[in-house]
Amino acid sequence: MTSTITRARADAFCRDILHQLGVGEREAQVCSDVLVESSLRGVDSHGILSLPIYAERIRSGQMCPGVDLQIVRDRGATLFCDGGHGLGPVQALEAAALVVDKAAQAGVGVASISNCNYVGALAPYVERIGQSGMLGMCAANSTPRVAPHGGREGVHGTNPLSYAVPSADGQMLVFDAATGHSAARVTAARDEGLCVGDGVLVDAQGRPSNDPEALEGGALLPVGGALGYGLGLLVDLLCGGLSGGPCGRDVPPVEELSGPYGSSFFIMAIDGDFFGGREVLAERCAFLMHSVRQIAPALGTDRVRAPGERALQERQARIQRGIPLSAERWNAVLQRLRRCELAVEDWC
Amino acid sequence: MTSTITRARADAFCRDILHQLGVGEREAQVCSDVLVESSLRGVDSHGILSLPIYAERIRSGQMCPGVDLQIVRDRGATLFCDGGHGLGPVQALEAAALVVDKAAQAGVGVASISNCNYVGALAPYVERIGQSGMLGMCAANSTPRVAPHGGREGVHGTNPLSYAVPSADGQMLVFDAATGHSAARVTAARDEGLCVGDGVLVDAQGRPSNDPEALEGGALLPVGGALGYGLGLLVDLLCGGLSGGPCGRDVPPVEELSGPYGSSFFIMAIDGDFFGGREVLAERCAFLMHSVRQIAPALGTDRVRAPGERALQERQARIQRGIPLSAERWNAVLQRLRRCELAVEDWC
Repeated sequence: MTSTITRARADAFCRDILHQLGVGEREAQVCSDVLVESSLRGVDSHGILSLPIYAERIRSGQMCPGVDLQIVRDRGATLFCDGGHGLGPVQALEAAALVVDKAAQAGVGVASISNCNYVGALAPYVERIGQSGMLGMCAANSTPRVAPHGGREGVHGTNPLSYAVPSADGQMLVFDAATGHSAARVTAARDEGLCVGDGVLVDAQGRPSNDPEALEGGALLPVGGALGYGLGLLVDLLCGGLSGGPCGRDVPPVEELSGPYGSSFFIMAIDGDFFGGREVLAERCAFLMHSVRQIAPALGTDRVRAPGERALQERQARIQRGIPLSAERWNAVLQRLRRCELAVEDWC
Repeated sequence: MTSTITRARADAFCRDILHQLGVGEREAQVCSDVLVESSLRGVDSHGILSLPIYAERIRSGQMCPGVDLQIVRDRGATLFCDGGHGLGPVQALEAAALVVDKAAQAGVGVASISNCNYVGALAPYVERIGQSGMLGMCAANSTPRVAPHGGREGVHGTNPLSYAVPSADGQMLVFDAATGHSAARVTAARDEGLCVGDGVLVDAQGRPSNDPEALEGGALLPVGGALGYGLGLLVDLLCGGLSGGPCGRDVPPVEELSGPYGSSFFIMAIDGDFFGGREVLAERCAFLMHSVRQIAPALGTDRVRAPGERALQERQARIQRGIPLSAERWNAVLQRLRRCELAVEDWC
C-alpha cells in the first residue's frame, strides 16, 4: 500500500529524529532540507528514506554532529578542508559557499574535504553555487562496487559527478549522475521483480546479466563503458586523490559502521565574469536548453528533456500531492530507527 | 594494400606540408608533434591523415598561422584568451603552460580560448600539465551531430573531455574520450562494410540502427545515454559558454571553410601540493592503476586495461614497426593536398 507524506511533515519527521540523535537545530535543518529536497525530486534513495543511514552512523560514532569543517590550508584559489567525520550535507554546503567566495576573488575556487561523511545527492551543493551566479561542479567517491570497463569485480564507487549552470531563462541547468550504475536501482528492480537493462551488471562469472540477483557475487558496470570507467577514476582522484583519503578498493564497504566512512568530496566554482561574462554564459545555457526541447524525439520518447527537468516536474507534483511512500519501505525505515533507540510513535 | 610510414618520415611529411603552407618552423614542429603522436597512439582520425584539414583551412583563411594567443584578461587564477583563429595545437599547448603557472601560484588555473581552431586529440594538452606534476583537464566543443538523450537530431558535438594525472609508477594516467559517439568511427565502419554497435546512432525516423549508412539523415547518440548527454552540454558550456563563443547548434558545420571554425577550448590545472600533496595524489593514482589490472576480466575480455593503456601499447608497436597506412587513404590524403596546390611528389 502506498500513502503520501507532505513536505512539511517530512521535514518535521527528519528534524525530530535528528534532534533525538543529538543534532543541533541548525545542522538538523540543513540535513532535513537536503533529504526532503531529494525526496521531492524523486531521488528516494537519497531522500527521507535514507534517514536511518544518519541514525545508524551517528549511533556508531562514525558520523559526528557538531563537528565544524576545519580549514587545514587556505592558499590562493584553493581550500584544503578536514571534515572530521562531521555531517556531510552541512559541510558540503559550507564548502560550496567557500568556493563561491574564492571564485569571486580569483575567478575559480576549489575545495577538497578529507574525512568527509555521507553527503547524499550532489545537486544541492552545485545549486548553491549556481544561485550565486556561477558554474558549479562537485564529486564524491564511494564504496568500490563498479567494475572497470572489461572487468567483473568492483574497483571504484558509483562515483557521481554533478554540475549546475545558471540559465537566462531562470531555470538553472542542474546535472547529477553517477559514472557507474547504481546498486540502489538494481536492488529496487529486484524488490519489484523487474529485470535490469543491458550493460548494468555482470554476474560472478563475468557474464552480462539482466537479473538483479546476479549482482550478488557479480559487479555493477560503468555507465557508457570506457566513458564512465575513466570518469569514475577521475572522481576517485579528485576526491580521495587530492584529499589524501581512500581511493578505489581502499574505500570501506558502505555497510561498515565501526571505522571512518572513508569518502572525500571535491567542489569547484567558476565565475563567468572572469571570462566572457556571467550573462553570456547564462544566455548560452538558455540557448542550449531551448535547443534540446526543439529536437524531434527518438522512437519511444514523447519529447526531449533537459537534464534535471524530470526531477523538477516531479518536485512540483510532489509538493502538491505529497511524497509517495510504500507502507513496506516506511515500516522498514521506522524499524531501523527503533533499533537505534529512537521514538517513532508519532510517525507510524 | 597497407604499408607503413616511420615516425621520422611522418614528421618530415607534416613539416614539409606545413612549411609549404607558410607555417613557420616552431609552429610546424608543434603541429607535427601533435599529429604524429596521435597517429602513433592509433588515433588515426586526428593523426597525420588529418593534415588536409590544416591545408584546406589555411588555404581558405579559416586557420591563420603565426597568430599568437592573445590574453584578453589575466585575473586571479584565470586567463581569458582569444585564439584569433590561429593554429589550435600551438595555442592549446601554450594555454596548458599558462594554467600550470597559474596553478603553481593559486593551486588551480583555468584558461578559456575563444576563436579557437581545430585542436585534434586532447591528450597532448593535459599530458603537458601532467608532466608538470599537476592534474590536468581540458575540453573542446564541436559541430552539433550528437542528439540529446531521447532525441533524433544533433544538438551538440562529440564534445570530448580529457584528463591526465601523474602516477607514482611513472606511467601517467591519460584519459581522452568523446561524450558523444564519433562520426569518424561510423564512417570507418561504413568504409569497411561493418555494422556499428547498439546505442551509437538513430536513423532519420529516430529508430535505433546498426547500419552506418543510417547516420545520413539520422544522428549520433550520446555515450551512456543521460551521462554523455549531460557531460556533452557541460563541455559546450565550459567551452563556448565561458568564452562567449558558439554553443550547440550555433557551432558551424565542420565542412564549412568560409567562416570561423567556431570551436572554443577550456583547460584547467590543479596542483596537489595545495591539498594533500602531489606525492599522495600520484600514489593514489598508481594504486588505482595497479588495482584495475588485478581485476578478473569479464567474459570476452583477455584482461582489464587502464584508460590510455591500449594507446601506449600501440605507440610502442608503431614506433618500432611504423604507422600503418592504407594505400587508399594515403592517396586520398595526397589528393586533397594536391587540390590545395601543394607539392606532394616526395610523399607518393
